[in-house]
Amino acid sequence: MRLGVRHPGLKFVALTANTHAGKPMASVFPHLAMAGLPDLVANEDVNFSDIDVVFCGLPHGTSQKLVADIAQENSSLRVIDMGADFRFRNAEDYGPVYGADHVAPHLQEKAAYGLTEHNRDAIRDAQIIACPGCYPTATLLALLPLVKSGAISTDDMIIDAKSGVTGAGRAPKQNTLLAEAGESLTPYGVGVHRHAPEIEQEIGLAAGKKVAVNFTPHLIPMSRGELITAHVKLDGAKNADEARKILADAYEGEPFIRVAEKGVIPSTGHVRGSNYCVINVFDDRISGRVIVIAAIDNLVKGSAGQAIQNFNVAFGYPEATAIEALPLFP
Amino acid sequence: MRLGVRHPGLKFVALTANTHAGKPMASVFPHLAMAGLPDLVANEDVNFSDIDVVFCGLPHGTSQKLVADIAQENSSLRVIDMGADFRFRNAEDYGPVYGADHVAPHLQEKAAYGLTEHNRDAIRDAQIIACPGCYPTATLLALLPLVKSGAISTDDMIIDAKSGVTGAGRAPKQNTLLAEAGESLTPYGVGVHRHAPEIEQEIGLAAGKKVAVNFTPHLIPMSRGELITAHVKLDGAKNADEARKILADAYEGEPFIRVAEKGVIPSTGHVRGSNYCVINVFDDRISGRVIVIAAIDNLVKGSAGQAIQNFNVAFGYPEATAIEALPLFP
Amino acid sequence: MRLGVRHPGLKFVALTANTHAGKPMASVFPHLAMAGLPDLVANEDVNFSDIDVVFCGLPHGTSQKLVADIAQENSSLRVIDMGADFRFRNAEDYGPVYGADHVAPHLQEKAAYGLTEHNRDAIRDAQIIACPGCYPTATLLALLPLVKSGAISTDDMIIDAKSGVTGAGRAPKQNTLLAEAGESLTPYGVGVHRHAPEIEQEIGLAAGKKVAVNFTPHLIPMSRGELITAHVKLDGAKNADEARKILADAYEGEPFIRVAEKGVIPSTGHVRGSNYCVINVFDDRISGRVIVIAAIDNLVKGSAGQAIQNFNVAFGYPEATAIEALPLFP
Amino acid sequence: MRLGVRHPGLKFVALTANTHAGKPMASVFPHLAMAGLPDLVANEDVNFSDIDVVFCGLPHGTSQKLVADIAQENSSLRVIDMGADFRFRNAEDYGPVYGADHVAPHLQEKAAYGLTEHNRDAIRDAQIIACPGCYPTATLLALLPLVKSGAISTDDMIIDAKSGVTGAGRAPKQNTLLAEAGESLTPYGVGVHRHAPEIEQEIGLAAGKKVAVNFTPHLIPMSRGELITAHVKLDGAKNADEARKILADAYEGEPFIRVAEKGVIPSTGHVRGSNYCVINVFDDRISGRVIVIAAIDNLVKGSAGQAIQNFNVAFGYPEATAIEALPLFP
Repeated sequence: MRLGVRHPGLKFVALTANTHAGKPMASVFPHLAMAGLPDLVANEDVNFSDIDVVFCGLPHGTSQKLVADIAQENSSLRVIDMGADFRFRNAEDYGPVYGADHVAPHLQEKAAYGLTEHNRDAIRDAQIIACPGCYPTATLLALLPLVKSGAISTDDMIIDAKSGVTGAGRAPKQNTLLAEAGESLTPYGVGVHRHAPEIEQEIGLAAGKKVAVNFTPHLIPMSRGELITAHVKLDGAKNADEARKILADAYEGEPFIRVAEKGVIPSTGHVRGSNYCVINVFDDRISGRVIVIAAIDNLVKGSAGQAIQNFNVAFGYPEATAIEALPLFP
Repeated sequence: MRLGVRHPGLKFVALTANTHAGKPMASVFPHLAMAGLPDLVANEDVNFSDIDVVFCGLPHGTSQKLVADIAQENSSLRVIDMGADFRFRNAEDYGPVYGADHVAPHLQEKAAYGLTEHNRDAIRDAQIIACPGCYPTATLLALLPLVKSGAISTDDMIIDAKSGVTGAGRAPKQNTLLAEAGESLTPYGVGVHRHAPEIEQEIGLAAGKKVAVNFTPHLIPMSRGELITAHVKLDGAKNADEARKILADAYEGEPFIRVAEKGVIPSTGHVRGSNYCVINVFDDRISGRVIVIAAIDNLVKGSAGQAIQNFNVAFGYPEATAIEALPLFP
Repeated sequence: MRLGVRHPGLKFVALTANTHAGKPMASVFPHLAMAGLPDLVANEDVNFSDIDVVFCGLPHGTSQKLVADIAQENSSLRVIDMGADFRFRNAEDYGPVYGADHVAPHLQEKAAYGLTEHNRDAIRDAQIIACPGCYPTATLLALLPLVKSGAISTDDMIIDAKSGVTGAGRAPKQNTLLAEAGESLTPYGVGVHRHAPEIEQEIGLAAGKKVAVNFTPHLIPMSRGELITAHVKLDGAKNADEARKILADAYEGEPFIRVAEKGVIPSTGHVRGSNYCVINVFDDRISGRVIVIAAIDNLVKGSAGQAIQNFNVAFGYPEATAIEALPLFP
Repeated sequence: MRLGVRHPGLKFVALTANTHAGKPMASVFPHLAMAGLPDLVANEDVNFSDIDVVFCGLPHGTSQKLVADIAQENSSLRVIDMGADFRFRNAEDYGPVYGADHVAPHLQEKAAYGLTEHNRDAIRDAQIIACPGCYPTATLLALLPLVKSGAISTDDMIIDAKSGVTGAGRAPKQNTLLAEAGESLTPYGVGVHRHAPEIEQEIGLAAGKKVAVNFTPHLIPMSRGELITAHVKLDGAKNADEARKILADAYEGEPFIRVAEKGVIPSTGHVRGSNYCVINVFDDRISGRVIVIAAIDNLVKGSAGQAIQNFNVAFGYPEATAIEALPLFP
């Protein structure tokens, strides 16, 4: 909402929320009190036939059902989904990861994987745009050009990831209380996080073979920001300099990707609140390996910002519209 | 810079910095690497005759000297000063507070006090716009309409203020290290802070008499944000509701001031990164008193945002240009 | 538990918890895994006849009922209550503040108000020790000697208070999530906080008259720590120096109260994790007023530490037993 | 100091500090105001002939010189060094890492590497005890039993490490300001951190061969706490369960090492302020690999606590004396 209300091509005609239906937005998000938004309503009170595009940010399982319903009501309506429901290219891959069968497999073929920089053509025309998870976004932006070019091996990829607590959503949970998560550092989902199969899908697609990756996320005592430290083996590239060059070439002209100069270490603080991703590559002490680091704001490039970027691609706006803000530092 | 580079009416032709002259901006502020800014230079290397406006954010004492110099070089150049040097309407008041005589008293009369909402007419035409300190901004926005209307007494005003550590600047100091300031709360400048005389000047001017206020700032373990809790005595107004009504009327139509609904408590989190100020009034347990609370982002409404707002007023742009972003929450 | 397990005079024979009954302590508080504690049980599974003392930390309303029950089972059992249930000296004052009648008024007369430094004699012999709230602890330690001596007036006392989020307990709530409370500052309970009547009770008792105080708490983005900034009018004392001297004399020899040297500003960081309270007094810009500042750790001196200090008084141990640890800084 | 002043076998006769010589301890560390410590003095004003043991926490290069000097003055004096100067078993290894030759190589043979749990016999009798760096402490506690037993391979060890900002010391630096390090996550010393060679030395010694490790530290927005996530290949052990069993057996009876139950994830929050280390092992998605995680407080087990533990070993006190405090949570 924060970004969208300043977009010249967006007009919010309905905001839905189940438990908060009937309330003004300001009572749920006081910082939006000045945004002039309509009150929240239930899904069933929305006339979807008047709407061009729906942005969904729902728990897994619920987008599939909702999208199936509204697609019947308005078949030309397009959906930009920030949830997990349409991220698996093969609907059969969804069940094992999310613990329930895909309920709209017929719609899966109308979905494009929404990693903008790597899938623009499909995004432009897709009915459903399945925005990647925050971790896959940072990981894939860092690694895909290296995998595609054969610069690195897909064996033994270690993705040590770190995220602020907003990755866990806004529902009150003990482990994201300030008194629990603050001044504290805790790994989670070790070996079992749901973003690992999504990363493997895209790396595998780029590599042309099935891959397995180590994905180890950590909860960091901060609200926003995500950084992945990928420890990978070189293959076609000889060292960090060559790998960095491949990334720089791949992302030349991209408005939101910055491959930093040699030695500059990405920090989440330097992309906070923005749609930027900063990437760099470093030589490892172990020969034949490099360390690829990428930083994003999980709530912008890792979620809402990328969603708007995809909207811009899909509806023909300049790609940076409404998301051109520079990072908020400090 | 973050805000200004997105302003359609601003073009940054020179960025000056003493110790960093010669460096690219990205080496000093990595988050601005994507902004396409010129490298930093020394003041003496700038051709001020080509420039329409200078934004100054300098330690006290240095703006006076610089502005005196450049005013000689280019008498039509206008200055928007975020420092303390031109905030006292009477140049003689400067010395006792800042420990050195005003070195450009002849320029003081060309300066307008830059509290936008209360001084637009003077700002529009002034050569120098002296943006208020962050604490005076929040305090005066909260209290001036109440003082002007006689709703509250100017006796016994207690302004208990709280600020994030960016109020202390970016120079490394022990007390603003994360390990010192983090997870910790510390008052500072108790009874002696330099913003007290500035607040007294403006309150006194509004009241038509000399006033003394209690101003007690506290260092809060956060980067940004400022909140003042003003404990004041009622005079013309009977209670918090009446005081709130006076504020709401005074700020009707203002783009950046939100007088919240009864019961809604301002929070710095709800204005973070934005130029907004949220204000509310509460009844006290002690009869005849109210508590007025105002929250701003000290680096935006309390500094750079207000500077750009004043630039917009002074140069005829719509007042919200480049500072219309909604708060970044969380 | 953290403090108590290292106390030579305490042996924990039963730990009760309703929702967690049956679990090992380590599954609820992993940091206590190394403490060798018994598993958690329900209240009804405890044989209170074998027990000498019960430490209670329960929601208001529940201690009264529990204590009434166990007092019947074991009339010599003593209770150290960290909750609110026995803090009002007159049982009739409880209802209006906590919204329900006191259910054990006959036990109220057996209770001593547990502000150790000011009530040792009563604590020594009382069956029930009602430990003060965290805010009243800091406030009363700062102000009681000044009120008792007539150094300050009880008119117009402004107590601007600040606390870390642990003051709100461990139950998941949206406003104490790291993403909400972190990097943010928010007043709460303005004009209506339940600790105000408790403070008024004790100040009034010391002054020999009914008083009303302004008590305005703020939620600070940190876990632990509490600081009160009391803005008060001088009466018998002429200035901050005299007031400080009165405090220093009153607390001479006290193991946990430090009245700091002139100019030293108390910080919660300097008492973190300890049972210490640091106090100081500062002159105000408004003549005839001073600012009294006190810092404690809300979970130690403001709760569990004071409880153990009271246990030591009540059972004849040296007062610092098990709570002698110096502050954990940083 | 915080821990030592409560040790029954320690009496602090002199505290030295160069820039602060002459000041009371309370002016440098206000939280120690209540500790009854002597004022700070310069090194040259200490009579080392009266002293039994010196605790050193000095920048690299300076301990070697000081220890060489005082060893001449008092040859029976023992030194517990928390700095880097005596950590390399071969004095020739020091220069390449720290950029200057070892100035007291004759003393190196009198030094024991102070990783208590793995080197008690040598520590007991050594004149100099070289306490490990904080990162090596956590890393070696997690990995040494697995390397010694052949459970894991020493090829391709990825040690992704995370630390609070106190790892960088108390000197004011821009990158550890709250406004820079707070709400931000930044890797540092990627590929070049000085703790890597120290880790390699000890892993290599255990493995009986030269090893190279990937060691990648990250600055976390918290004061204290350190966690290492070691991504390693299995060798003799078949899976995480077997590796965990080897660790549990190796550390049986150790007072400060907790090998957690299967599935329990170590967190720095659960060891804060204490001398404990919590370790666990998890299966990786990549077959043939495991993830070993260890958490410590970098300022206690990673520095001062381990120093006192070593003092206890060296001087015959029960090993937990003065460091038995449970973690401070939250």
